[in-house]
Amino acid sequence: MLTVDDPLLLRTADARGVVTLTLNRPQAFNALSEAMLAALQTELDALAQDETARVLVIAAAGKAFCAGHDLREMRAQPSLAYYQALFARCARVMTAIQRLPIPVIAKVQGVATAAGCQLVASCDLAVALESARFAVSGVNLGLFCSTPAVALSRNMGRKPAFEMLVTGEFIGAREAQRRGLLNRLAPDAASLDAEVERLVASIVAKPRVAVAMGKALFYRQLEAGVEAAYIDAGQTMACNMMDDTAQEGVLAFSEKRPPSWAVQG
Amino acid sequence: MLTVDDPLLLRTADARGVVTLTLNRPQAFNALSEAMLAALQTELDALAQDETARVLVIAAAGKAFCAGHDLREMRAQPSLAYYQALFARCARVMTAIQRLPIPVIAKVQGVATAAGCQLVASCDLAVALESARFAVSGVNLGLFCSTPAVALSRNMGRKPAFEMLVTGEFIGAREAQRRGLLNRLAPDAASLDAEVERLVASIVAKPRVAVAMGKALFYRQLEAGVEAAYIDAGQTMACNMMDDTAQEGVLAFSEKRPPSWAVQG
Amino acid sequence: MLTVDDPLLLRTADARGVVTLTLNRPQAFNALSEAMLAALQTELDALAQDETARVLVIAAAGKAFCAGHDLREMRAQPSLAYYQALFARCARVMTAIQRLPIPVIAKVQGVATAAGCQLVASCDLAVALESARFAVSGVNLGLFCSTPAVALSRNMGRKPAFEMLVTGEFIGAREAQRRGLLNRLAPDAASLDAEVERLVASIVAKPRVAVAMGKALFYRQLEAGVEAAYIDAGQTMACNMMDDTAQEGVLAFSEKRPPSWAVQG
Repeated sequence: MLTVDDPLLLRTADARGVVTLTLNRPQAFNALSEAMLAALQTELDALAQDETARVLVIAAAGKAFCAGHDLREMRAQPSLAYYQALFARCARVMTAIQRLPIPVIAKVQGVATAAGCQLVASCDLAVALESARFAVSGVNLGLFCSTPAVALSRNMGRKPAFEMLVTGEFIGAREAQRRGLLNRLAPDAASLDAEVERLVASIVAKPRVAVAMGKALFYRQLEAGVEAAYIDAGQTMACNMMDDTAQEGVLAFSEKRPPSWAVQG
Repeated sequence: MLTVDDPLLLRTADARGVVTLTLNRPQAFNALSEAMLAALQTELDALAQDETARVLVIAAAGKAFCAGHDLREMRAQPSLAYYQALFARCARVMTAIQRLPIPVIAKVQGVATAAGCQLVASCDLAVALESARFAVSGVNLGLFCSTPAVALSRNMGRKPAFEMLVTGEFIGAREAQRRGLLNRLAPDAASLDAEVERLVASIVAKPRVAVAMGKALFYRQLEAGVEAAYIDAGQTMACNMMDDTAQEGVLAFSEKRPPSWAVQG
Repeated sequence: MLTVDDPLLLRTADARGVVTLTLNRPQAFNALSEAMLAALQTELDALAQDETARVLVIAAAGKAFCAGHDLREMRAQPSLAYYQALFARCARVMTAIQRLPIPVIAKVQGVATAAGCQLVASCDLAVALESARFAVSGVNLGLFCSTPAVALSRNMGRKPAFEMLVTGEFIGAREAQRRGLLNRLAPDAASLDAEVERLVASIVAKPRVAVAMGKALFYRQLEAGVEAAYIDAGQTMACNMMDDTAQEGVLAFSEKRPPSWAVQG
């Protein structure tokens, strides 16, 4: 049973370097309160330095994944300066996910709304129950989901994204996948675990350095023109190729054997 | 019956602020003649200042939505300066749609070709009959749809967009929706009305200020990198939250009652 | 039978200006060795100057389309300078495809992996056998497909692209089409020929100048903001309209007859 003494954010890590952060405020639909954002930022900052970490799963306790900002807190401090700081703090969490040197997988059940939907959109990969639902519903309260729009519009086309933002309506998981917000669906909790594990196992089987260089390059080049993107990508790939892990990988391939990367983890 | 005396562009507005502009040159498939572009620009400029307007529907009389530029006019004035001015005028109409502080919905039946397809792509939202068809067919006349390409390639992926531009071939409404050019489909005229009304009703139920701030931010942030986008979006959302409508919306939510926005419209 | 004396790259051209370059190193799955990249660059450079060429088809001999870089060569010269030069050379081939004044169609059977998948993504259009499969699988060897990511992420959404890059897993042709990497599918070799021919016939029926101006504009405007894109596109389209072919096309349309473009080819 969860109690008020439970920490806001649960952290587990296995021997492979698979870290799971579980939003643990189910009675508040895991709202991103200031304390929750601070806890996430602390863990993300630590993970950015942790060379044993290989992949991060962001999960959630209870029936909902995340209902966005904590409206009670927002009501309590109605000042422009407070809201500016709050949305900046939230954006910092979202961009820290993208800057993390390891892939981040959202594991979603129930609803993901407003900044909760932004959290899904901000992860590198996302897996959800088929029954999960997604909305950027702030507009229903007169608060257009402007910061979630940044992440959402980088996952799906403009017309479907704008429709969600202006109507505040939910879409189902299947539609979310069709639009590019989700990678994989699962019919039940056990399958959800299995789909996440499939991605996790695939990622931890690769050298950390290649994934880290590749992920950073992936987001950098998306914001560049093709010419500049290729200069950056070519440089990145050449450096990657000089690493012992890639040299061993290419050698192993030519010798028709699996690469021996045990040491590099 | 429509006669030659009918205005090029019909305008209706209801008590909710739902404005409908109907392209009304059905005998010419609602071609975007200079006069039609001027009429659209005049209405869009007026709407940009009209605080009672809440949503704009762009519809069309007759069998076709819009067949693009008026080729007879284009033939009559074969000078570079004329064409430059014409395409600039058309682009100004298209960008005015995006700059309008209210959402714009294309309501499409029949064919939407060349600049007519660009018009659909330039609206924030689009609903069409299942029998509607879309093409950027200028290339069939030796005139590559370069200005329509700007809008089209911001609605769908490059390969499908380029195929349409280089072959000039039609795609059906279902395929157009799959690619991101349409939000919703309707099997017949009555359903088309109903689908547009569903979007309209959803939009007018939200505060005007939130929608206006959100729409402007949506297009600004699409052209920025993620960092700059979040700074802009955070600022926008903080300002939005300071508005009385959002304060009331959040309060109402916490009191489990619908927001009372009657005054703000 | 293919022998070691066969050239790396076969070139055919028909009377219409349809050029086909066939990767012809089937025993090595058409790997993009230095010699293959050089042969491609030479042909692309020549085609950029060849005003009789109307469309380029990039095909492949044997069971695979292209398996990416030549790993044996890469292992033989393990220096940063060598890899930098190699990836730069490859990027130059890919961008030359985009800069070519004629459309380029990838005709794909079997597997297209790593830089082979990048080659498909870099073409303007792509047609594949339904049995074809696509992967950016360098990460399996510890070498994240950073340069392929540039092309891949400009064909499909970020989450599906990142999943392919970080897992190295294959997707089938149907999924590749759904994501935007392919235009058309064919169930067998004869249908593949027919689908490519349908695109080719459509392209050669259009004036070369319109297609060349339009293709160049298409990629330029994708990297610009909407305002700048419209200025460029309006200018391009006005120039296009001044060409004799467009004047004839528009005249023919108004006279309800096919345009007479025999001379311009």
